[in-house]
Amino acid sequence: MEPRADIAVIGLAVMGQNLILNMNDHGFTVVAYNRTTSKVDDFLANEARGTRILGAHSLAEMVALLKKPRRVMLMVKAGAAVDEFIEQLLGVLEPGDIIIDGGNSLFEDTIRRTKYVESKGLLYIGTGVSGGEEGARHGPSIMPGGSPAAWPHVKPIFQAIAAKVTDPHTGAVEPCCDWVGEGGAGHYVKMTHNGIEYGDMQLICEAYHIMKDGLGMTADEMHAVFKEWNTGELESYLIEITRDILAKKDDDGTPLVDKILDTAGQKGTGKWTVISSQEMGIPITLIAEAVYSRCVSAMKEQRVLAAKAYKPGNPRIAGDRAQWVEDIRKALYASKIISYAQGYMLMRAAAKAHGWNLNYGGIALMWRGGCIIRSRFLGDIKAAFDKKPNLENLLFDPFFKKAIKGCARSWRKVVSSAVKKGIPVPAFSTALAFFDGFRCERLPANLLQAQRDYFGAHTYERVDRPRGEFFHTNWTGTGGRVASSTYTV
Amino acid sequence: MEPRADIAVIGLAVMGQNLILNMNDHGFTVVAYNRTTSKVDDFLANEARGTRILGAHSLAEMVALLKKPRRVMLMVKAGAAVDEFIEQLLGVLEPGDIIIDGGNSLFEDTIRRTKYVESKGLLYIGTGVSGGEEGARHGPSIMPGGSPAAWPHVKPIFQAIAAKVTDPHTGAVEPCCDWVGEGGAGHYVKMTHNGIEYGDMQLICEAYHIMKDGLGMTADEMHAVFKEWNTGELESYLIEITRDILAKKDDDGTPLVDKILDTAGQKGTGKWTVISSQEMGIPITLIAEAVYSRCVSAMKEQRVLAAKAYKPGNPRIAGDRAQWVEDIRKALYASKIISYAQGYMLMRAAAKAHGWNLNYGGIALMWRGGCIIRSRFLGDIKAAFDKKPNLENLLFDPFFKKAIKGCARSWRKVVSSAVKKGIPVPAFSTALAFFDGFRCERLPANLLQAQRDYFGAHTYERVDRPRGEFFHTNWTGTGGRVASSTYTV
Repeated sequence: MEPRADIAVIGLAVMGQNLILNMNDHGFTVVAYNRTTSKVDDFLANEARGTRILGAHSLAEMVALLKKPRRVMLMVKAGAAVDEFIEQLLGVLEPGDIIIDGGNSLFEDTIRRTKYVESKGLLYIGTGVSGGEEGARHGPSIMPGGSPAAWPHVKPIFQAIAAKVTDPHTGAVEPCCDWVGEGGAGHYVKMTHNGIEYGDMQLICEAYHIMKDGLGMTADEMHAVFKEWNTGELESYLIEITRDILAKKDDDGTPLVDKILDTAGQKGTGKWTVISSQEMGIPITLIAEAVYSRCVSAMKEQRVLAAKAYKPGNPRIAGDRAQWVEDIRKALYASKIISYAQGYMLMRAAAKAHGWNLNYGGIALMWRGGCIIRSRFLGDIKAAFDKKPNLENLLFDPFFKKAIKGCARSWRKVVSSAVKKGIPVPAFSTALAFFDGFRCERLPANLLQAQRDYFGAHTYERVDRPRGEFFHTNWTGTGGRVASSTYTV
Repeated sequence: MEPRADIAVIGLAVMGQNLILNMNDHGFTVVAYNRTTSKVDDFLANEARGTRILGAHSLAEMVALLKKPRRVMLMVKAGAAVDEFIEQLLGVLEPGDIIIDGGNSLFEDTIRRTKYVESKGLLYIGTGVSGGEEGARHGPSIMPGGSPAAWPHVKPIFQAIAAKVTDPHTGAVEPCCDWVGEGGAGHYVKMTHNGIEYGDMQLICEAYHIMKDGLGMTADEMHAVFKEWNTGELESYLIEITRDILAKKDDDGTPLVDKILDTAGQKGTGKWTVISSQEMGIPITLIAEAVYSRCVSAMKEQRVLAAKAYKPGNPRIAGDRAQWVEDIRKALYASKIISYAQGYMLMRAAAKAHGWNLNYGGIALMWRGGCIIRSRFLGDIKAAFDKKPNLENLLFDPFFKKAIKGCARSWRKVVSSAVKKGIPVPAFSTALAFFDGFRCERLPANLLQAQRDYFGAHTYERVDRPRGEFFHTNWTGTGGRVASSTYTV
């Protein structure tokens, strides 16, 4: 055995296998390893047959095959397995070698692991990889962060296997992969991507729900709508697969989608995005509603009982169907703009909190292809940041401002009609409520501050005094002379 | 110095002082201690003058004054200060003594501290105390959890100083304090209380916003509305103080509420409730929107810019004002029912996860008086659990079912009108969206599951097959033979 391999990949589930095959296609020699080593043999005898992919049956064998600095990529389940493999790898690797985690790890774990691995003299990369099995095989979006010194060694491989997109402005073909930042930055951006993905999927589901129950459309009719939508502003991978899903027939010739149980699973990254937004104090209301909607969907037994207890009325919406479909499209588009504006607000806050120098246009470009949320839309976001790199909020960009204004009437029409008809549209609704709150110069929080000062002596600021001056009113006339410092709500 | 004191309280901010005065009123001898000891002298010379309250200038002096088992209550800032005092107290107390944390500690910290203090042979209580300064002084709601063996020693003091309410069914007068459960149960219930408080305050703010901007009502006119509302189903402390706030005049004779800046603060417990709900997978959408609304209110500078960029139209709502006010009342009431149903769902899930045997009716009774969310409404919740102690969801209780049905028409009218007029009502909206989702037998999550199976091979269940059987469709015809196990979204 001579050290001839460019990189090792540990973990041969579908994402790991496909990344290996993708690397192989681009001329890299990969060593495949898996804890259950029979999977290595199985992979070599099937998917990897006839390639230059190597197999290893132990970490020592794997390491012996690697050129230096050794690059070892973990494609294992996020959590304890990553820490266990890091510990084992530290025993067989040497200073300067690079450990890469390509799973959906929590960014805080990646911050911790980067520090730990660096303390041992090695380098660490925590990278988001999006695109599902197809993306991994033919070009994912890759979002690496961690030890900056590791990036030059990993860049050629990652940028080769990543999806490619044409920059809408320069016309240059760019890989959907670039350095995101130190520590947990890569996994943070990937987490936000997944949160946005939750939102996008929920928005499509709400559009589908209104068309199905409100307009009484069939799967075939909706297939035609999504096909049409995929030629315009909404053009994206998720609209495209929705189009295909709606056309898919079950063995009996009826639409397969109608046979699928309406209880959605969720696995963590959407939840993490919401938790981080709470820590940061950033209102990503749409992603939160999307995550909660999955939770509601999982309460199937209670929902069936509740449907009996509270019989919904007739959900049919009157009016011209083509007009309604266009109104729904606009509601979806406007809500999507809000969701991305919120996601970018979150990344901006996290970057500030963690000292990451994020390239917001670059992130849009990375998401432009390869990943689940890839879309024409992300090209428009890239363009917005090209025009104004320090754009504080997407909603202040002229393109999106015009887009929102063009959709507002339909958006309000769709939400108010769904509300009247009892069709749940939590994501459409919250997007609109956020928008109306965001553009509201005077919110009712003055009353809320009065309440907090009344019962908790929390103090308030005044509209006729400079910010930073705090006032307390003795509302009842019976309060003491002591201000609140421990009791907080 | 002979040991003659019943309990010591550490921390002389407003809540600590008022609890001490309250204990003194009920015949207990309290030792007051504060890290900055000048506060002790100040307190003894002012608020505590002429009482039997004792002061201590060191922990040793404080301990020497206490009867055994010694009871020491911390009323200090949640976080590191609690751990520091526990460490110091372990040095001066002895086995069997009781450390009580009365701050707004995170329940997970209380779980950890209970174990730690018990491991040293002492007992620990983490207790929620709600009611603000007034409550602490004259009768708070107290929600203790921790070491069960500590409860008999603390019960006489806590139940004496707690608020008292008359059970709506039995007519018995009961203290708003009872044992909640082991470990962090007390602080969890208090956290949920605070989350619900966030929701209640946001609902009132939205009602106020619609009346002010939609109906063009003055503070005095709204004062009359809240005064009226406080005689009916909505009767509660928060409605009562809102009534009083709206009547309060500034020095120039104009309503003070109009002078208060509309940027609300938040300190943690609302956020924690949302984070816990995400961990538990429980859709407490209303509290989440309430927390996010505070975040939006804090973005004052961006909001002012956005108000210029997206000029809101005329928000005035046409129609009979009295009718609209009644519609708003019903929208608030229905939304409030949803919020409490969600809060109870959360506590039920947490109890299951942590092995707490929560008494749901008892919790309603504890919240019935003393605390910020105290209300007639909580008597109705107590009654629901009296009728059916194992009630799975408040929305299945006949009383609340009837209430929701009676409000539904107004609720939809208010939300749809606010949506059309551009008045943000995130909490009203999400409550309705949740309700419509909860009573929806077939949500669009079937499409979502198809999407997840399409791009991530996540598999799905079928409506025509038993639960627990999972199917994967090769949607594109090009997927591999390997199922997803590491890639999750």
